Amino acid sequence: MKQTPHPLRLHPDRLFPADPAQRAIARRLYAEIAALPIVSPHGHTDPAWFAGNAAFANATELLLTPDHYVFRMLYSQGVDLDALGIPRADGSRAEVDPRAAWRTFAAHFHLFRGTPSASWLAHVFHEVFGLDVRLDAHSADACYDRISDALQTPAFAPRALFERFNIEVIATTESPLDPLLHHAAIRDSGWQGRVITAYRPDPVVDPEHEQFADALRRFGELSGEDVYDWQAYLRAHRQRRAAFARMGATSTDHGHPSAATADLPDAQARRLFDKVVRGQAGPADAELFRAQMLTEMAAMSVEDGLVMQLHPGCFRNHNQALFRRFGRDKGADIPLRTEYVHALKPLLDRFGNDPRFRLILFTLDESNYARELAPLA
Amino acid sequence: MKQTPHPLRLHPDRLFPADPAQRAIARRLYAEIAALPIVSPHGHTDPAWFAGNAAFANATELLLTPDHYVFRMLYSQGVDLDALGIPRADGSRAEVDPRAAWRTFAAHFHLFRGTPSASWLAHVFHEVFGLDVRLDAHSADACYDRISDALQTPAFAPRALFERFNIEVIATTESPLDPLLHHAAIRDSGWQGRVITAYRPDPVVDPEHEQFADALRRFGELSGEDVYDWQAYLRAHRQRRAAFARMGATSTDHGHPSAATADLPDAQARRLFDKVVRGQAGPADAELFRAQMLTEMAAMSVEDGLVMQLHPGCFRNHNQALFRRFGRDKGADIPLRTEYVHALKPLLDRFGNDPRFRLILFTLDESNYARELAPLA
Amino acid sequence: MKQTPHPLRLHPDRLFPADPAQRAIARRLYAEIAALPIVSPHGHTDPAWFAGNAAFANATELLLTPDHYVFRMLYSQGVDLDALGIPRADGSRAEVDPRAAWRTFAAHFHLFRGTPSASWLAHVFHEVFGLDVRLDAHSADACYDRISDALQTPAFAPRALFERFNIEVIATTESPLDPLLHHAAIRDSGWQGRVITAYRPDPVVDPEHEQFADALRRFGELSGEDVYDWQAYLRAHRQRRAAFARMGATSTDHGHPSAATADLPDAQARRLFDKVVRGQAGPADAELFRAQMLTEMAAMSVEDGLVMQLHPGCFRNHNQALFRRFGRDKGADIPLRTEYVHALKPLLDRFGNDPRFRLILFTLDESNYARELAPLA
Repeated sequence: MKQTPHPLRLHPDRLFPADPAQRAIARRLYAEIAALPIVSPHGHTDPAWFAGNAAFANATELLLTPDHYVFRMLYSQGVDLDALGIPRADGSRAEVDPRAAWRTFAAHFHLFRGTPSASWLAHVFHEVFGLDVRLDAHSADACYDRISDALQTPAFAPRALFERFNIEVIATTESPLDPLLHHAAIRDSGWQGRVITAYRPDPVVDPEHEQFADALRRFGELSGEDVYDWQAYLRAHRQRRAAFARMGATSTDHGHPSAATADLPDAQARRLFDKVVRGQAGPADAELFRAQMLTEMAAMSVEDGLVMQLHPGCFRNHNQALFRRFGRDKGADIPLRTEYVHALKPLLDRFGNDPRFRLILFTLDESNYARELAPLA
Repeated sequence: MKQTPHPLRLHPDRLFPADPAQRAIARRLYAEIAALPIVSPHGHTDPAWFAGNAAFANATELLLTPDHYVFRMLYSQGVDLDALGIPRADGSRAEVDPRAAWRTFAAHFHLFRGTPSASWLAHVFHEVFGLDVRLDAHSADACYDRISDALQTPAFAPRALFERFNIEVIATTESPLDPLLHHAAIRDSGWQGRVITAYRPDPVVDPEHEQFADALRRFGELSGEDVYDWQAYLRAHRQRRAAFARMGATSTDHGHPSAATADLPDAQARRLFDKVVRGQAGPADAELFRAQMLTEMAAMSVEDGLVMQLHPGCFRNHNQALFRRFGRDKGADIPLRTEYVHALKPLLDRFGNDPRFRLILFTLDESNYARELAPLA
Repeated sequence: MKQTPHPLRLHPDRLFPADPAQRAIARRLYAEIAALPIVSPHGHTDPAWFAGNAAFANATELLLTPDHYVFRMLYSQGVDLDALGIPRADGSRAEVDPRAAWRTFAAHFHLFRGTPSASWLAHVFHEVFGLDVRLDAHSADACYDRISDALQTPAFAPRALFERFNIEVIATTESPLDPLLHHAAIRDSGWQGRVITAYRPDPVVDPEHEQFADALRRFGELSGEDVYDWQAYLRAHRQRRAAFARMGATSTDHGHPSAATADLPDAQARRLFDKVVRGQAGPADAELFRAQMLTEMAAMSVEDGLVMQLHPGCFRNHNQALFRRFGRDKGADIPLRTEYVHALKPLLDRFGNDPRFRLILFTLDESNYARELAPLA
């Protein structure tokens, strides 16, 4: 069936207000910053890309399989994740031709209208890959080929894209268990792109993380500390933070269900830790331990200068069936109403007036910006 | 006292944005849907209207006495509900000339400016009844007569209005105790208007409903089940749902204080139910029972295909004195901040991935749309 | 270093919407009310100003030292409060030349751009003092001199400003311990300006107020009642309210952490009070006592006609270190998400339908206006 393709055009004011006076101001402000380099202190790129600089395999492997915002939306419309070849929790993966997965995506792409994913992808398609037709069932193959072919050329290798995008610095996040070999490879390669790590200790800090027991064991092996002892556990953190800092890290990164912090007397913190490592922590203990660890991390930040990043208020892996089949980070992360004022007080009482302490708060509850976060600043 | 009447005119753009670019889009979108038939899956019309097709008595009985948004606002300005002839909890009613009640309403109508009720009523006055002066103390009688006279003509009988408004289908809500005689009468009348019921089991599901004990007894009588036994109680629900479905129902409807759901082991659910029917349930038990019943209703929806509608987050009958004198549903329903993410997880863990399950969530807490409801979808 | 000064101009539409249609309406509405007198039922001016009518000392003492919104913002940018001469908790004060403090302020003033403080101060500078250059490091001295010189002229004495600003009435707030000598002096002076007090009993109502024990003792001395007895304590309130009313008060004013109210049986209220005066109240007792006292105050308002003002939802003195050094009300008051529907029910169940009872609710949680406060009205 022949059909006239829908042209893909990007309105230059597409992210600006409709009101002419406001739009004129937005244009003026944007013109001043559009050419500035990108400084990305919190990102989710894979350092392996820049270490190996291997070509991305095809459109599906770059734009569909790793983007849980995209496949989560398809899932909500009844598309099975196996039909898209999303890796499963057990490490297996449905055998799906990436072109077939792309066609499924393309046939549903109209459903993304009005979403940030659609804006983002339209930009990528048009600006990065030069597509001039909209993605739909009819254009699916042509778009797939154009993107996949481009990815095999040197101009679309990871480092080339990094340079084309005028990135001054980009941060990745790694677990304390990560040996940071990719970052070492980047540093040793002589390439001038600045890709730095960030210390994200969630798996060894959150007793409810499904990998906690295993992660703690490996944390001990990697650090050489007896991490089942409270002080040694804290020393292991200091040691890994220092290793991260040597690999360029300027920050730590903490994804917690809430913003709760605690500042327990040492004996009480030690008892709580003992309960945690014996696997006896209930939900309230787990929450209190995470809360205490934020204050411990703040104390270390005052020592070593790493900026602390906290993004609370997300119920992760909310879809139990999906979590069991496909594991974590599959788009079932639901924002929660979040409280900061009581939650942060224990930490702020200790470090809030210390000029060496720097804390970046993220929120998924936009009502907090004016009410709680600005006044706390 | 002679006075020039204020003309009543409806601005064609009155519900559209002020910004010209947005307004043009709103006009274009509206033009595309303005002539479509009305499909009203959740309404509060009385099926007796369409069964009997009797003329509405007068302006007051149609537009004032049954609209608790309107008389609640008057009450907030010091108007006693008896002065409006609102029926009392004990079944009595102050003897008030409907024209006198209308005059009281008219004398206060300017106080509604800027409210949805005023927009709605202006539309009804102008578009349905052809009034061209604003309702106020001076125009009260003329408006009353014009509306009341029109209501006595065939063009304003309930079925005629149904057809004039181009309603494709409208749903009413009934308690499980309702024998659905009006719906049967509509179906048997040969009239083609589609008026369907919806299953709203609150009185036999909410232990804190003031009619619960009595409703449960009648639930048993009507269903022939021993509804004081947990499994028989659930069977009675299935039986009544089937009867509702035969009378056109496509949905159930649940008005709960919160969105809490639970998925208790059967023995625990049975013990909770026993406590409830013995009248021994405290507030926490009542909340847990309602939560469990949402999951039971979801299970039945998967079986029988009725779409589940949940509108939580309302503190009903908040005004104690008003509730005692005038009973429930007198406008003292106050929206509450509402949490969905934790609340719905037990139900979603069981049925959230089942393509047969359909749940419509309502909210009175508009901050939830983007934060919780869209990501949960 | 010579530098062209930045002119200070106020855009006449600076507080109006950008959309032309909305702006035209805003202008029309504003024109109708711009010349009306100011009726300020809730303010924070000092009655001593109007009693003594002494000239304000200089720009710093008028605009910087007493404005915690301003110095709190400077503190957030690393300016020590001692550098601004802010009085400390122990009554001492760093010796700082007010001109030097002003220069520090001026050098940071650009950081206020886009804040309400900047809008407010720009108005004061331009409209009240006639400044035509923006405040910055270069204009600091000229601005300081211009303001300070003006303040020494009769046209800038407190009563002259009161008249110039076309104030019909302004309310101050005082603690029950205040002998109201300034208000008496104003009344006896023959000056016609209407400055009235408001009864703000927080220090003798909040067991967690750091001055509670001392305030209660002085409350007993001033009233001559045995305020350690529940009924006598309530009598002392009635007595002081009457004294405030004689000095013009038309309202009471209550700043509570939450909007919680309670309506305890008398014996239980008495036992709670006994616990409070013995200093044995924990946080939950303190909250319950504050809640009960709101209902007691409402009962007195029904008797004596004082309008009740409640502004809940603020975590006061959140910065512990700042509180210890500089005391309360130093800008570390953080808005909290606030619940009104459950919280106010006990009080409203008693007085909500009484036409003699008037309650003004404030909120720092703007999501409440439409959701909870309007429906409760």
